[in-house]
Amino acid sequence: MLAGILHGERDLRLETTEQPQPGPGEVLLRVLRVGICGSDVHYYRHGRCGPFVPSRPFILGHEFVAIVDSVGPDVKQTSPGERVVVNPARSCGRCEDCTSGRGNLCRHVVMLGSGSTTPPTNGAYAEYVKVQAHQCHSIPDSMDDGIAAMMEPLSVALHAIRRAGDLVGQRVLVTGGGPIGLLTAVAAQSFGASVVAVSEPSRQRRDTAAAMGADHVLDPTSDGMIEHAIGLSDGGFDKVFEASGAEPAVLGAMQMVRRGGTIVQIGTVGNNHITLPVNDIMLREISLLGTFRYADEFTTAIRLAASQRIEKLPQFITGVYPLKEIQQAMSRASDGDDALKVQMSVGD
Amino acid sequence: MLAGILHGERDLRLETTEQPQPGPGEVLLRVLRVGICGSDVHYYRHGRCGPFVPSRPFILGHEFVAIVDSVGPDVKQTSPGERVVVNPARSCGRCEDCTSGRGNLCRHVVMLGSGSTTPPTNGAYAEYVKVQAHQCHSIPDSMDDGIAAMMEPLSVALHAIRRAGDLVGQRVLVTGGGPIGLLTAVAAQSFGASVVAVSEPSRQRRDTAAAMGADHVLDPTSDGMIEHAIGLSDGGFDKVFEASGAEPAVLGAMQMVRRGGTIVQIGTVGNNHITLPVNDIMLREISLLGTFRYADEFTTAIRLAASQRIEKLPQFITGVYPLKEIQQAMSRASDGDDALKVQMSVGD
Amino acid sequence: MLAGILHGERDLRLETTEQPQPGPGEVLLRVLRVGICGSDVHYYRHGRCGPFVPSRPFILGHEFVAIVDSVGPDVKQTSPGERVVVNPARSCGRCEDCTSGRGNLCRHVVMLGSGSTTPPTNGAYAEYVKVQAHQCHSIPDSMDDGIAAMMEPLSVALHAIRRAGDLVGQRVLVTGGGPIGLLTAVAAQSFGASVVAVSEPSRQRRDTAAAMGADHVLDPTSDGMIEHAIGLSDGGFDKVFEASGAEPAVLGAMQMVRRGGTIVQIGTVGNNHITLPVNDIMLREISLLGTFRYADEFTTAIRLAASQRIEKLPQFITGVYPLKEIQQAMSRASDGDDALKVQMSVGD
Amino acid sequence: MLAGILHGERDLRLETTEQPQPGPGEVLLRVLRVGICGSDVHYYRHGRCGPFVPSRPFILGHEFVAIVDSVGPDVKQTSPGERVVVNPARSCGRCEDCTSGRGNLCRHVVMLGSGSTTPPTNGAYAEYVKVQAHQCHSIPDSMDDGIAAMMEPLSVALHAIRRAGDLVGQRVLVTGGGPIGLLTAVAAQSFGASVVAVSEPSRQRRDTAAAMGADHVLDPTSDGMIEHAIGLSDGGFDKVFEASGAEPAVLGAMQMVRRGGTIVQIGTVGNNHITLPVNDIMLREISLLGTFRYADEFTTAIRLAASQRIEKLPQFITGVYPLKEIQQAMSRASDGDDALKVQMSVGD
Repeated sequence: MLAGILHGERDLRLETTEQPQPGPGEVLLRVLRVGICGSDVHYYRHGRCGPFVPSRPFILGHEFVAIVDSVGPDVKQTSPGERVVVNPARSCGRCEDCTSGRGNLCRHVVMLGSGSTTPPTNGAYAEYVKVQAHQCHSIPDSMDDGIAAMMEPLSVALHAIRRAGDLVGQRVLVTGGGPIGLLTAVAAQSFGASVVAVSEPSRQRRDTAAAMGADHVLDPTSDGMIEHAIGLSDGGFDKVFEASGAEPAVLGAMQMVRRGGTIVQIGTVGNNHITLPVNDIMLREISLLGTFRYADEFTTAIRLAASQRIEKLPQFITGVYPLKEIQQAMSRASDGDDALKVQMSVGD
Repeated sequence: MLAGILHGERDLRLETTEQPQPGPGEVLLRVLRVGICGSDVHYYRHGRCGPFVPSRPFILGHEFVAIVDSVGPDVKQTSPGERVVVNPARSCGRCEDCTSGRGNLCRHVVMLGSGSTTPPTNGAYAEYVKVQAHQCHSIPDSMDDGIAAMMEPLSVALHAIRRAGDLVGQRVLVTGGGPIGLLTAVAAQSFGASVVAVSEPSRQRRDTAAAMGADHVLDPTSDGMIEHAIGLSDGGFDKVFEASGAEPAVLGAMQMVRRGGTIVQIGTVGNNHITLPVNDIMLREISLLGTFRYADEFTTAIRLAASQRIEKLPQFITGVYPLKEIQQAMSRASDGDDALKVQMSVGD
Repeated sequence: MLAGILHGERDLRLETTEQPQPGPGEVLLRVLRVGICGSDVHYYRHGRCGPFVPSRPFILGHEFVAIVDSVGPDVKQTSPGERVVVNPARSCGRCEDCTSGRGNLCRHVVMLGSGSTTPPTNGAYAEYVKVQAHQCHSIPDSMDDGIAAMMEPLSVALHAIRRAGDLVGQRVLVTGGGPIGLLTAVAAQSFGASVVAVSEPSRQRRDTAAAMGADHVLDPTSDGMIEHAIGLSDGGFDKVFEASGAEPAVLGAMQMVRRGGTIVQIGTVGNNHITLPVNDIMLREISLLGTFRYADEFTTAIRLAASQRIEKLPQFITGVYPLKEIQQAMSRASDGDDALKVQMSVGD
Repeated sequence: MLAGILHGERDLRLETTEQPQPGPGEVLLRVLRVGICGSDVHYYRHGRCGPFVPSRPFILGHEFVAIVDSVGPDVKQTSPGERVVVNPARSCGRCEDCTSGRGNLCRHVVMLGSGSTTPPTNGAYAEYVKVQAHQCHSIPDSMDDGIAAMMEPLSVALHAIRRAGDLVGQRVLVTGGGPIGLLTAVAAQSFGASVVAVSEPSRQRRDTAAAMGADHVLDPTSDGMIEHAIGLSDGGFDKVFEASGAEPAVLGAMQMVRRGGTIVQIGTVGNNHITLPVNDIMLREISLLGTFRYADEFTTAIRLAASQRIEKLPQFITGVYPLKEIQQAMSRASDGDDALKVQMSVGD
């Protein structure tokens, strides 16, 4: 089969490789559409992703929709021909984290299309991929492939939002207008936030945020922006989603969040460490919350998408390339601020 | 001043009465628009409302927007000329219920336009009404009077929804398509519910629910409706808002709610008692939750309305009459299934 | 091996039967101590348990501690010689209920020692029992067998308490002084409830409750008891655990619960149906919550027992019989109000 | 009347000053017992407390029990002769923070015995003090003055615990063994935490923590302490209460908290800023929560103390001096690690 294999820094090759065989409890999937994630771009640019250095070449890709091609022994949950979205983070289902509803924290998790395990686990930049049957979620016929391939990043946004608590009537700020930031923003609007502001230094991305319907779009590099933001939220935002990882954004979040408010840190911080005003956290009773992937948000994401409750979802797809044009697709995904979600169509 | 005074069963008179004077901490309000609540209709039809029998004639009306006319001593929160929405349920602000965020349970609460206290407290079917300053909530100029006069019933719906917990991705059923039921339904859609179904025996109200955009509209009197409802929610609804008070609806809610799901009882049950399957509640781990008025939902309601997050709100106003036509307004509000919110315009 | 097999109503036989063999993912356990549950007594007395009619004779018993004897293929979590407590409710670990932390609601659950599946599943009134490896929880050496065999009923109490929410400073009433009711009461005290009252018609059980340290012990058959209870809780209890299933207790709970309070229904109601004051639930904003078994409470139960945080736990064991005296053990468990937890010691 | 007035750095004088007169809604209290808070010591040592610089001399003291001496006009909640505990943080009761149950965040709060307002507000190092009637909480006769004067610091601990969420079965670490840290530790044990460890560099305080019954007492200056702590909590603590404000403790908390766990920051950090590993917060899904004073915890504190649910409470009182020996009392409170709660007895 054809597959996009990462051999090293900026060395992503479309090659013919052996088609996997499903074992007990496993299914073989024929990929239909796969999205390019920011972490895929990281692997491509640096040959690694943060602390994860792949021990050998592997197939990238973990945002996808596929058709069940064949099933291994003991598979009852699905059958050939079913169209499914895949949760690429396979947790054990049995540890205390899993049984308490926090499978994203499972220590035994295996991530598809990732160098975080040794050896790396092959992903979905390929004609076929093998997963465990329980990772597959059936989707309605009415959902198109592009939307279906976005269930993974949408789950990331949903998990961050769940961490923040109920958004009804809340004044929300998203710092960082990349795909996850904007998904969070449009979802927050669809979940009853009364004000959703997006702060983003790139002009192009601010324009996109405005086109998506953000109530306010802010340029963090402009003078007096923090005072302005505090003013338009009548004293500070109830919830801030920090989706940039930029130090000024993290520090700005501390100032722009309301007393008693919540900051959810979604964006990865380059050098990890930032000097924070810990007394302010205490005296202003701020909650600073980490968020990691998604627990059981796939079914929620699918239901929301099936009912088109998040109207702006289709606007996130800014390019679809055939798998053969993987180089162009990766360039498009990594080259600028105008791309949100770039996807590859497989097997047409 | 002119006021609509309830003297007894179907005896509502437009009379001239003395204008109230604001004491310390109080403000005198000039009423702009007042809505007719289902409980007002009850008082009108029966001369009482459930257990509450007014000890003397009083002015009805508690859903309203007004302008501050004058303020009594020690009032700093507001000043003449400000347009405000009023929380008609005045809680003490100091008891344990109040300080824990459940002011709706305050034992010292005094309800405006209600016979629940002795003597009754005059309400807003009048040119002027007197309230405590802290009951007033400022509203933006952009919010029109009709919407502003709906902040009270919207707060009722918001409190019921808050009792149910986060609705994101949830499958929701509302039984009963009156004003509160439909407000709950459209709010649930605006808060991310993935499916919102409305069950209602009146054809006219079902049509209204459909026009409002309910995902499914069900006729509880049709054959096999419960099985049908369970099917379209893929095994039962996560949350059911029982807004009818009808015994079959309460019992149906028990069957149509999903295992582990939640029923919020909003509607008043005529004779109070219903025979319920208590073991099913236990074995299916159902949560049956009461909901009473609103705690601090006014500010949330105002923010949501100001940002037009609940798009369907304006469609709820099905009639606006001048105060002089109070008889016609009350007839319209009490006569059928086609009216949602009937309001009276005062002082034009 | 020897096993206590239920053949029908009051027909429990100690017989020699074939020892099970562990398959893939399974372990063979040598039972050390097994408790007699109220549901076991039900099966014994009636040959069935509510709706569950066993399709053939089976081995009862699901509250137990054991030693791993041997393990089947693919078992890595445990190894022979380890002493373990077993979660007898085997959920699938993969459905939406399981991944959201509500495995007790899993539709695919298989209960050990129970006639709820067809055929019934053999339990632990036996020298050996077979379970899936993931059902086993390791316990510290310091925990004795008697306490370890109580982790299942303690988990039931913990789940009911979790449903009720945080108990710190809360005024708690438990109606029904059987084993689960008293476990809930002593646990509530250990979790910071400020007042714990137990209501129970049996004099013997009231004495036990008093000996366990309940702050108040009430006789529901005495005159004016409800007013008395409301008085000593200063207006009603914040949380009521209804552990009797008796109709007067359920109705009394509605009166004795505070406005805004919570009732958790633990006890099975004989004929399922009770006529409830639904308007009171609504107007007093009561939460009536079902509770079913336990989700992930086993690890919590083990930790609490290991640290002896619930001091009264050892007092619950009111009799230990060798498996050979299964008839005497069952008689003791079923004959009166003086027994809390009767256990059988196996293999000594 | 006699009063302890702070004139500046280490300048606390026992002087005769005018007795206050209660106005409308106010009561005059005769102080019985008052505790010395860490913030009082700060004012004493530095003439200020962090950002708060008193604009003129004032009477310190906010942890106290008193008898109602006389009441001003319009006071109905209490009457002369009643013994009360006072919530020294007077919130407005009407703003959105107050009505939502977060009165500790009220912007209009006035703190007794504090230089945080201009002019400062006189406190309870005095024979008499004036407060608003609603600040008074009645206490049972059985509660002695020493315990009653601890309701304020206990409320601080309770609020921190409430921020952390339910502690049942949780593994808890408290860093910092001062009065608030130890109160949190003993409360956590009384609320069902399965393991409570205290980390503290002072030998004397570690001994106190051990005498109070902490499950583990750790010396943060010893080699390999962090690994040891992680080991004894089986992979990290579920909840960490950081009550020291020391930078190594804050950073250690980040390492010793379990994946998905919670850190509550109680202790004030000297220079406010600490460099934190923000990615770890994100990737390990940590919750870092500020906590400020108390919202409505006074009633909870009183109930818990009245029922003696926190057994170790009396052990916190390490010295009681008459008001005349205010210099000795303050020296004792400020001089070392062996004092927990030093109190002054007034008017004997």
